[in-house]
Amino acid sequence: MNVRSTGEFESIDRIKKMLPELKNAVVGIGDDCAVLGSARGKYILVTSDMLIQDVHFELSKVSLLKVGRKALGVSLSDIAAMAGIPKYCITSVALPPEAPPAMLDDFYRGLLKLAKEFGVELVGGDTNRADKFICDVTVIGEVEKVKLIRRNGAKVGDKIFVTGSLGGSIKGKQFDFTPRVKEARLLADNFKIHSMIDISDGLSSDLHHIADASGVGAVIFGDRIPVSRNADSRIDALSAGEDYELLFTAPKAVKERDLTARLKMPVVMIGEITSKREGVKITDNKREKIDLERSGYRHF
Amino acid sequence: MNVRSTGEFESIDRIKKMLPELKNAVVGIGDDCAVLGSARGKYILVTSDMLIQDVHFELSKVSLLKVGRKALGVSLSDIAAMAGIPKYCITSVALPPEAPPAMLDDFYRGLLKLAKEFGVELVGGDTNRADKFICDVTVIGEVEKVKLIRRNGAKVGDKIFVTGSLGGSIKGKQFDFTPRVKEARLLADNFKIHSMIDISDGLSSDLHHIADASGVGAVIFGDRIPVSRNADSRIDALSAGEDYELLFTAPKAVKERDLTARLKMPVVMIGEITSKREGVKITDNKREKIDLERSGYRHF
Repeated sequence: MNVRSTGEFESIDRIKKMLPELKNAVVGIGDDCAVLGSARGKYILVTSDMLIQDVHFELSKVSLLKVGRKALGVSLSDIAAMAGIPKYCITSVALPPEAPPAMLDDFYRGLLKLAKEFGVELVGGDTNRADKFICDVTVIGEVEKVKLIRRNGAKVGDKIFVTGSLGGSIKGKQFDFTPRVKEARLLADNFKIHSMIDISDGLSSDLHHIADASGVGAVIFGDRIPVSRNADSRIDALSAGEDYELLFTAPKAVKERDLTARLKMPVVMIGEITSKREGVKITDNKREKIDLERSGYRHF
Repeated sequence: MNVRSTGEFESIDRIKKMLPELKNAVVGIGDDCAVLGSARGKYILVTSDMLIQDVHFELSKVSLLKVGRKALGVSLSDIAAMAGIPKYCITSVALPPEAPPAMLDDFYRGLLKLAKEFGVELVGGDTNRADKFICDVTVIGEVEKVKLIRRNGAKVGDKIFVTGSLGGSIKGKQFDFTPRVKEARLLADNFKIHSMIDISDGLSSDLHHIADASGVGAVIFGDRIPVSRNADSRIDALSAGEDYELLFTAPKAVKERDLTARLKMPVVMIGEITSKREGVKITDNKREKIDLERSGYRHF
């Protein structure tokens, strides 16, 4: 048995079992961000993501400007998934000693441009030596307690929505995506949203995360999935991941057209939440329900 | 020109020049932790440190239990340097797919044992694939606004103190050190401390950090440096680094024996703060002042 065979999610479960009960934190491992108590009706949100050369990107194919942008963007997307406002970021970077200083400059230029767009301040950094370029970005944000949206609030009868379109992110969106921070705030401000996650692992995998956390089932209407014109197939839209769109559930009364109008971007109703015993399904071409595999991106 | 020739501190300077002025954060890049505003008379402290296999440790020589302990410990030491109380940690880890799950368990067991000792909760994690074991730990803490101690408060005439003994950390202390969190709190609670840093790069390098940040000079009395019995020489005690002891300055009235009694560990007065134009010096065997090189550990 090795980490590849057990997989990332099993690894997380192993670690969770080692942890004592949380005394201070509101939400620990298992959502998009950790949620920490604060004063004045707000929570602090914290999330970290690591990108590694030749695992997450190849320098022959992408510039460090884009890697810097993505390194921050994936964590901004995690803050968005909980309807938070990103405030600060901290970077740990490693690079080969023979790298030109411009390499570090490019990384930070890409990161800082996105940081400026979202009003995020870079407040700390650690620089190390390594054979390959590695970065880990931590983002700290905040959210009003009444506006926090988690993965675990989906209710039977909820409709399932997704912003934008899915699949084909390998053709560019994986580096150029816009974290849906503003859209998530508009959702929290104007609608009753029961649960939310950002699509990083893939629609199917991330829907399973919502279902697991909420103790519910779900059915996706296969023909309603908004497939990106860059996607090779609907399978790609379901499982390729790195879309960094919002996947959320809301009561029946919430209408697709109202969401689209308010967010000023396409929002599509793609399914509904069912009871746990019905499992997580997708309707096929004949509109029959079949099991939806957890076929999203896996890290091992 | 490459990163090795420009070095870590020059890299940090390059990045700092790219940053807009801070609007929200109290302290950004350039101290042991970032300091963020909060309510109720407290600041939030955040710090990250990355450890990389074959750069910071070799798995043939040290177990991942110790790496996990150290990965958290170095950041706890940064929180201590600002007299803070560590509260939460988040981990990003990468390891080879062929690694046994026990590898991850060992890392987390080592980390969680130290976390428990210091009342720190693990609240988030990210697991990735890489050729070598990599970890980056972010610690979030807090400090009462009136108790925050920074690098930049040293005043001409201050005495310079250090806890414990220095050098020889390569023989074990680099993995087994105790972050001086309790000692730093005792200092902040009971004495007027003007500036503080933890010794990670080495006494000489870290003293230069205090002098630079405070706009002062310093003289170290060479014969007063508490050299560890594991150190090969006084040069080792001055520059090897990874001691994770506290280096701090306080007004003349603060006595070595009172500090030692209150902290219940050896505290030694090793020098005094002088004016900036006097530079950073050390007295040699003949009690003559010579320049103290920035000869601490460098990451490149």
